[in-house]
Amino acid sequence: MTGDYIAIDWGTTNRRAWRMSADGVAGDVLKDGRGVLSLQPNDYPNEFAAIRARLGELPVIAAGMVGSNRGWREVSYVDAPADLATLARSAFRDEKTGVSVIPGVALRGGEEIGARADVMRGEEVQVLGAIAAGLAPDAALFCQPGTHNKWIATTAGRVTDIATALTGELFALLRGHGILSGMLDGAVEDGAAFRDGLSRGAGARDLTVALFEVRARVLLGRLAPQEAAAFASGVLIGADVGARDDLDGREVQLLAGGALADLYAAAITHCGGRPVTLDSERAFACGIHRLWELIR
Amino acid sequence: MTGDYIAIDWGTTNRRAWRMSADGVAGDVLKDGRGVLSLQPNDYPNEFAAIRARLGELPVIAAGMVGSNRGWREVSYVDAPADLATLARSAFRDEKTGVSVIPGVALRGGEEIGARADVMRGEEVQVLGAIAAGLAPDAALFCQPGTHNKWIATTAGRVTDIATALTGELFALLRGHGILSGMLDGAVEDGAAFRDGLSRGAGARDLTVALFEVRARVLLGRLAPQEAAAFASGVLIGADVGARDDLDGREVQLLAGGALADLYAAAITHCGGRPVTLDSERAFACGIHRLWELIR
Repeated sequence: MTGDYIAIDWGTTNRRAWRMSADGVAGDVLKDGRGVLSLQPNDYPNEFAAIRARLGELPVIAAGMVGSNRGWREVSYVDAPADLATLARSAFRDEKTGVSVIPGVALRGGEEIGARADVMRGEEVQVLGAIAAGLAPDAALFCQPGTHNKWIATTAGRVTDIATALTGELFALLRGHGILSGMLDGAVEDGAAFRDGLSRGAGARDLTVALFEVRARVLLGRLAPQEAAAFASGVLIGADVGARDDLDGREVQLLAGGALADLYAAAITHCGGRPVTLDSERAFACGIHRLWELIR
Repeated sequence: MTGDYIAIDWGTTNRRAWRMSADGVAGDVLKDGRGVLSLQPNDYPNEFAAIRARLGELPVIAAGMVGSNRGWREVSYVDAPADLATLARSAFRDEKTGVSVIPGVALRGGEEIGARADVMRGEEVQVLGAIAAGLAPDAALFCQPGTHNKWIATTAGRVTDIATALTGELFALLRGHGILSGMLDGAVEDGAAFRDGLSRGAGARDLTVALFEVRARVLLGRLAPQEAAAFASGVLIGADVGARDDLDGREVQLLAGGALADLYAAAITHCGGRPVTLDSERAFACGIHRLWELIR
């Protein structure tokens, strides 16, 4: 047990914590919905204590939104291009609590108006871990759906590009509020309605018009009410995936599991790409263990 | 006073009611935020009574979402193409309450997958009223921003095309919830940040990526926090207006007032169109009076 530690992937909406052995094998796990948006900054000491009560009184290494201005301690982003060593050099270590936090990665763009800026926290550990584990080549395009879908490109094992789409968040907002609320409670699965949505959303410049069409189609009897959620999900995921013009024939490393992986795989295929589904937990374990070895 | 009546433009978010003279002159007015999303179906008898207590015990003609499945009584849409006579023929008249409700207009699209479907309720009265009042030509493109922005095309005085963009609703959802909440409380006006947003959003296929960039730009010091709302508004309005490929050199009849009219006028100009701002209350008064003459 000597040398064991706790690794946490602490996101916007969800949280996963593992007890890790000294040689990087993931053991007991805790998964829940206590993401940073459900917590206040002064909740964290109790959260760390509760995690240790479950997994052991061990040092902690955490990645993700826990290191954002919405989380526990803001840890400055490192600039892309970045690899695991870059992240380790800028990790924050709190001796008092025995908690280390990994920085995120920023794409700063240029000075000119219109150059893209983007940021991520946590996804870089999975991406670089997938490469370190040999799950993906060191020059690849990764897709990591969730509340916010991240597109991450790597070159020679370094993160070189980031694009974040609000796909999951928008679906949740539309389902919970406004004119489409009450229409989007049906099952979302890869079927005819989802495929129709993909066709409508992929490449669309009028995404918000396509979203209103969910309501219009139901009102006019052209979409079954119980299929409205699948159609709307197809529109949003289609717009997300179809906005990329670099998918044709290309492998996309899909860091996701379950239903969301199926939906994005269908969308990537629809848009000409070749999805390869990776084990995101194995990727995270490998990435966080490499980081732990570098900072401990 | 004989022949006076009450005309109501009852939308999703807002409501305006006028006492109208028998010859169509708008008098006393009541404006508030009691749109249909803030009401339940059985609230309407009390709402009609309260409006009459303010404006007079008179017959009522109402247009807008009050006639939707989210309002008081669902009145079936008439199909496009539609003019004022088409609307009048399908109006709902409730003898017991003395309230008449104008139907909306539906664009049913075709049977093939992907054909556009859209609907509107209330906007058709302003559009056809603007033509009847001589404010706009009978073949025109109208833009009517609000919670939902409506693009409406007319030919020979009939509504022939509809496209609804969720622009205002999305801005409100993003401001109130999720990862951008707390970042979008600044003033929205036509300035450098709004123009930068227009440039980013107009024609973009990656709208949800552009929206996440609001956060990334603020975090990376490339956008002042107090300008984030204007930038985000620019992205959304730019995407809305820029999705149209038929604006170049074309007059757009803008049915809006105040700050929203300024923002859409800037966006229409940015995208090559020529905005002409119309008096939407005068347009509604003319349209609803023509309808009243046809159905009373």
